[in-house]
This record gives sequence, C-alpha cells and structure tokens, in this order.
Amino acid sequence: MSQIEDKLATLGITLPDAQDAPKAAGNYAPFVQSGNLVYVSGQISRHPDDSPMVGKLGATFSVEDGAAAARTCAIQLLMQAKIACGGDLDRLQKVVKLTGFVNSTPDFTDQPKVINGCSDLLVEILGDVGRHARSAVSAPSLPLGVAVEIEGIFEIS
Amino acid sequence: MSQIEDKLATLGITLPDAQDAPKAAGNYAPFVQSGNLVYVSGQISRHPDDSPMVGKLGATFSVEDGAAAARTCAIQLLMQAKIACGGDLDRLQKVVKLTGFVNSTPDFTDQPKVINGCSDLLVEILGDVGRHARSAVSAPSLPLGVAVEIEGIFEIS
Amino acid sequence: MSQIEDKLATLGITLPDAQDAPKAAGNYAPFVQSGNLVYVSGQISRHPDDSPMVGKLGATFSVEDGAAAARTCAIQLLMQAKIACGGDLDRLQKVVKLTGFVNSTPDFTDQPKVINGCSDLLVEILGDVGRHARSAVSAPSLPLGVAVEIEGIFEIS
Repeated sequence: MSQIEDKLATLGITLPDAQDAPKAAGNYAPFVQSGNLVYVSGQISRHPDDSPMVGKLGATFSVEDGAAAARTCAIQLLMQAKIACGGDLDRLQKVVKLTGFVNSTPDFTDQPKVINGCSDLLVEILGDVGRHARSAVSAPSLPLGVAVEIEGIFEIS
Repeated sequence: MSQIEDKLATLGITLPDAQDAPKAAGNYAPFVQSGNLVYVSGQISRHPDDSPMVGKLGATFSVEDGAAAARTCAIQLLMQAKIACGGDLDRLQKVVKLTGFVNSTPDFTDQPKVINGCSDLLVEILGDVGRHARSAVSAPSLPLGVAVEIEGIFEIS
Repeated sequence: MSQIEDKLATLGITLPDAQDAPKAAGNYAPFVQSGNLVYVSGQISRHPDDSPMVGKLGATFSVEDGAAAARTCAIQLLMQAKIACGGDLDRLQKVVKLTGFVNSTPDFTDQPKVINGCSDLLVEILGDVGRHARSAVSAPSLPLGVAVEIEGIFEIS
C-alpha cells in the first residue's frame, strides 16, 4: 500500500478497486493521459453507496453539505488518479488544476467554501503535492441533479 | 483525403475548408498549440448554414435536440483540429479532453445525454483515438443563446 | 522592467508586487506550473482597492461594465504570470487558453463581448503572444457575487 493510501486509511477512507470505480456516463473515458498529465473527467458528488448526492446550494444544501459533497469528488478523483498510476499513488507528482462546479441558486456566493471540501482533503492527504490551481463557479444544474462536479488535471511520473 | 475524412464522408459529413471556418467572436484564436497539444476554443452549436443553433434544454429543446446540437460542435472541433494538423487529420493522436456546456433551465439533469451527441460522433469517427475525458455541466445561458458550447484539447503529432 | 511592463505602463497599469497579490480563497495555489505550462487559478473581477467587483450581466451590469470587469481579470492573470516567471514577464511565450465565466441572468447572450475586455487587453499588451484559445460561458452566480471570473493557461520559457 502506498504512503498516500496509508494516510487515507488514517482518515477512514479506502479507495475502491478499479473494477468498482463509477463508469463513465457516456462514450468517453474516466481519464485520458497525454505526456505526464492525466485529465480526469468530471466527478459528481456521490453517497458511499455510489448513488448521486443530489442537492442545490442556496436551497436544499448548506455550505457544509456542499463541502461534504465536494469531498466525495476528491476521493473519486484520487481513485481515478490511482488507476492512471497503475495502482501506485506514490507516482502522483502534482495535483495541477481543479475546476469545481457548484449546483446553486443565482444568489449563492460561497462557491470557494464548497470546493474547499475537495481542496482541503487533497492537501491533507498529499501535502504540497496536493496544492493545486483552481476555479470554483456555479452551474444552474448538474448531471442527475448532483450538488457538485469537479474535474482535475494530475501530473504523474 | 485522410482515412478520418473517409469515415466522415460515409456519414455524409464534409469538413469545410479552412477559409470557411467560423471566425472567432473576438480578439482570440480558434485554437492555440502548445507542445503537441492543441487547445480549441469553445465551439457553439450551429445550423448547416453556420447560423447559431439557439435553444434551451428543459424549455425549447429536447434531449434529442440537444444531442444534435452537440454533434454540430463535434464537427466544428474536428474542423479546427484539421486546420491545426495542417489539413491532415491522420496526424490526430488523441482527443484528450472535452468540456461541454449545456444551456438549460435549473431543473435539467440530462447534461451527459446531450454532450453524448459530441462524444458519440468522435468515437464513431476516430475509434479509441476519440475516447476522451469529459465534463458536462449546465450554463444558464450561452453566447447568442445557443444550446451547446464545447471546447476541446487534442494531441497531434 | 520588462518590455511588457513598459507597455502596461503606457496604459497606466502597474502590476502589484508579488506580496500584494490577492491570496487564494482556500487551500490551493494562485498558480501551478507543470512543464512549461502555468495554470493560473480563476481570477475574479476586482476594484482597484482589491475589493470584489460585484455585478450581474443582464441585471445590474451593462456589457461595458462587464468588459471592464473582465479587464481587471486580465491584469490579475498577468500579475500571476509575472510571479510564475520569477518577475520577468519577457519569459512569457504564449497565452494558451482562457476560460471566462460571466455572472448573468438566463437571457443574457453577449458573453463574448464581456470576455473581450480580457482578451483585448492581453492582445494589446502582448501582441500575437497574447492571442489565445478561449471559451466564454455564463454562470448563474460566482464567488462573492463578482461579475466575471477568468482562468488561464500560459506557456513560459
């Protein structure tokens, strides 16, 4: 087990095996590698049983709910990164960039606090390797009605 | 004519010549290359006569209408990729990443089925080369009121 | 002072020192470099005193207001690029890609004219080096209620 998964384990997080990873909802791939960059498809917020975590910030979801939703995206991004690394997350060199989309009402203004749920976990687990560039914006709606969708670019060795 | 354009022809699709490609709607470029990656600007859904394909999912456009709109974005992305390849699409190595924006009402949740209109065509034409990472999200509105806007990253040789 | 900052000076624009750059609103970095690409986090529109420039296109902000807001994002993107270049903007090789998010009502359709406020300044200052690929879309809301958020990818030497 990699050092990174050791840290995940101390937080009670176990990454699912590759065969249990959520499937792409269409004719595309969960991630594509070009050079040493891995582009991971948008990961939607999910409950522990993999069902979509549905909610709208400014309406049915508090900022804390949203941050918890973003945290589930972080776990899925790490899971895809692990598969891209052939199972060895110690090959992860850098989280380069995240783009976070928050399902919200038009008057919601705390997108950064929501996406922090993802950023904070990545930095907690990965340290400086996890400190990424980021955009956080709202969307009027997201696939299946989920609260958060986050895509990522990772540099691997 | 490249093998890829042969396949396009069997679907009745002819890529316009470079000089007939839609112009950028501002002080920017239709695409920029850095290393072997080509970043193609957001392509808006268009009718065969190049006029904008206006619509809103959840209101005036069905999922099928939206998928057809996304398909027109795929053709324009391929056209820009062809220009980036100096006219020879066989130099296209990989569709790396798409980001698809769907003009929709706040209660619309089928963004993936809409953007599939683009993804399906790319995979049909390009096979595994066309299997990309992807995000699909809603926007409350898009340029000129179009139904779909999709940007892409392509790896070329 | 670099040639680029000379041009900025002729427009009355002075880039702030690195220590005065706006801080990231969370556990992330203002930019991350991978290879010779610098990914700059989404920069929100700001007044000269750094307070957020709040507004909504189609409601409280005209297209001209929005373009002025986007111009402030351009200055901040350049400032981050300067820091990434170790203070020497002449190392900037190319503005590769911008993604511009416009805080707007659902009936607003002039996103490109708004984001032109950023694109025009970059091309005015940088010439062909500044001519980037771009997407311009709406968001129903943005962090702190700002009118515009723009992220960028820059190639440096």
